[in-house]
Amino acid sequence: MSPTPADHTAFAAQALSRVRDRSPLVQCLTNSVVTGFTANVLLALGASPAMVDIPGEAGPFARVASGVLVNLGTPHAEQRSAMVEAARAATSDDTPWVLDPVAVGALPVRTALARELLELRPTIVRGNASEIIALAGAGGGGRGVDSSDGVEAAEETAQRLAGSTGGVVAVSGPVDFLTDGVRTARVANGDALLTRVTGGGCALGAVMAAYAAVDEDRFAATVAAVTAYTIAAELAAKKAAGPGSFAVEFLDALAALRESDIAERASVS
Amino acid sequence: MSPTPADHTAFAAQALSRVRDRSPLVQCLTNSVVTGFTANVLLALGASPAMVDIPGEAGPFARVASGVLVNLGTPHAEQRSAMVEAARAATSDDTPWVLDPVAVGALPVRTALARELLELRPTIVRGNASEIIALAGAGGGGRGVDSSDGVEAAEETAQRLAGSTGGVVAVSGPVDFLTDGVRTARVANGDALLTRVTGGGCALGAVMAAYAAVDEDRFAATVAAVTAYTIAAELAAKKAAGPGSFAVEFLDALAALRESDIAERASVS
Amino acid sequence: MSPTPADHTAFAAQALSRVRDRSPLVQCLTNSVVTGFTANVLLALGASPAMVDIPGEAGPFARVASGVLVNLGTPHAEQRSAMVEAARAATSDDTPWVLDPVAVGALPVRTALARELLELRPTIVRGNASEIIALAGAGGGGRGVDSSDGVEAAEETAQRLAGSTGGVVAVSGPVDFLTDGVRTARVANGDALLTRVTGGGCALGAVMAAYAAVDEDRFAATVAAVTAYTIAAELAAKKAAGPGSFAVEFLDALAALRESDIAERASVS
Repeated sequence: MSPTPADHTAFAAQALSRVRDRSPLVQCLTNSVVTGFTANVLLALGASPAMVDIPGEAGPFARVASGVLVNLGTPHAEQRSAMVEAARAATSDDTPWVLDPVAVGALPVRTALARELLELRPTIVRGNASEIIALAGAGGGGRGVDSSDGVEAAEETAQRLAGSTGGVVAVSGPVDFLTDGVRTARVANGDALLTRVTGGGCALGAVMAAYAAVDEDRFAATVAAVTAYTIAAELAAKKAAGPGSFAVEFLDALAALRESDIAERASVS
Repeated sequence: MSPTPADHTAFAAQALSRVRDRSPLVQCLTNSVVTGFTANVLLALGASPAMVDIPGEAGPFARVASGVLVNLGTPHAEQRSAMVEAARAATSDDTPWVLDPVAVGALPVRTALARELLELRPTIVRGNASEIIALAGAGGGGRGVDSSDGVEAAEETAQRLAGSTGGVVAVSGPVDFLTDGVRTARVANGDALLTRVTGGGCALGAVMAAYAAVDEDRFAATVAAVTAYTIAAELAAKKAAGPGSFAVEFLDALAALRESDIAERASVS
Repeated sequence: MSPTPADHTAFAAQALSRVRDRSPLVQCLTNSVVTGFTANVLLALGASPAMVDIPGEAGPFARVASGVLVNLGTPHAEQRSAMVEAARAATSDDTPWVLDPVAVGALPVRTALARELLELRPTIVRGNASEIIALAGAGGGGRGVDSSDGVEAAEETAQRLAGSTGGVVAVSGPVDFLTDGVRTARVANGDALLTRVTGGGCALGAVMAAYAAVDEDRFAATVAAVTAYTIAAELAAKKAAGPGSFAVEFLDALAALRESDIAERASVS
């Protein structure tokens, strides 16, 4: 039985406090475009970022981190080795780790890497519809970083993928779809300005790792992460005059977010 | 016969709408300092950034991109290979690509790379006066990232360089000088705060690639890119209290820029 | 005899003008998370940043730079070679250089590199208490990027380390401790928001390099750098609504900082 929207909302409100109380250490192996924004999002939320992404350090560090993000946006050779090292260590220690297969299917190097990482059973896979379909092997690929498929088109594939990894799959879009293969949820919060700031999607992967680090129920944690993040975006959009001021307001909104904001605004079904 | 200032202004106003309507996919192989700002500038303008800069992916991606930026600011070994791959693919497909030879002449690795890339005939070369002079082989080099030559000193060299590449050469400075070897234009818009934000110049290279992607006349497109970019800087400077707020206002101004702003403020001669 | 607080305050006020007048060229070999913020901090202050961090260029560039920052946050293989190159050239030319041994002790690759760099006698070492203790070989390491030791616990070690390098050691914390082995100073300015922005500490290393480039007395220069930087943070915090707006206000505050702000607010003992 899937949890009710009220369950998710209550959980999401409490999860925010748990993240702030425990300040999980989130190791990010991510692309060169969004490192700074990702670290600032984690800091604003109350988590601790650490970008340890070289071979020989990434594995050992994953053993002390609370959660790990592996984002394939700009996977140069050293980082690819470090990603496999970190994912292996995380899986072996049951530390939650998030795979964000940016532009997988369209580009050969990261597609091969994504398949290798998938076998290490990521706790959470986060992507747009085209990426999820390509990762599951159901799509033809070749489309690039923006999704050419609607979220609905990926729902069945996402459930199947979650069944095979034993983890959570999150499909981003105007309404996000999340599943652990059995349970499903849709989160309708957010604002289009989040797509006008680079890292708007990538940093969410890091936030998912932070939430999964403080809760055993990783499906509920992922729903809570998406809910908090997209509600902060709504609050920021109300004060923003464009994408530049939105990015600033978004960090302020994450830092100021209250449990009551989540209780009042969550649109989970 | 060179186009008149009124021709340029009308073209620049319309080109802005074309960029927004078509949202060109701009592949950026750029330096590690400015990746985030560059992506945010493209997003604010209405274009689609993609930082694909590893060997084995850069070439294939250039075949689907609308335009390509190659910026030599921090050219580590893998990126150098990827740059040659991308430039070759772009030239072969007649996809417009921009070469920004940051600090060329002063530093040996990038100088050798710049000469190799120059043989692939970049659609647009963008640099300060010292870089243009060094790239054309007319200067002694050794000066670093800031220009020690005035724009005027590089005008003749720029025309000769454009003649040899068959493309456009843009020399940045208080008044920008642009030429395709036959036609010339000077754009006097802009604000000094643009030089107090890292990436202020580098991101313009990406914007040139976006504009060149939507217009066959690449000289007019380059003039239009410079005009829109520097007018947005003027509008942002009016609201800014310093370099931090300027960067935020600049992104908001790019997103809010109207054809009428260009028609009213363009200073092209 | 240590200089008095009034000496430091007067020196710090004048040093700000010297940095702006001479605009020192600061070469940064730093981590991928903070490159943009670091460059923007230097530009706001009036210095000139240059991120030259590849082998074959880093050494030659260090010979023309006014100061050099070596920050070990994300030390991939090429950057490690470039760091040794740059540090060697700086030491050989008596150009001031700053070593920021991020997370040393906790991670093996950077720990080995830090020890190698330490033998090249950095002009300034900047770190939190745990990093300074680990670098000096007095700690067990293994703690990660955040300090688990208080500043006081590192004071004796810092003095001993400064004695062995012949340079300055700066221990960051709520009250910063600085020593050249003989003289000591404590700077109590700053704001906790500086720890909620990524690069808040790393960029200070670049500012120290800028200040050391314009003054022979590197201990006084380091105290002046910390004083100006943390006072700008105080001024920014008064206008900020959270970490996002703080980062923006901080850059504006650095650009607007006056000698009188330093004279009025400095808390050096």
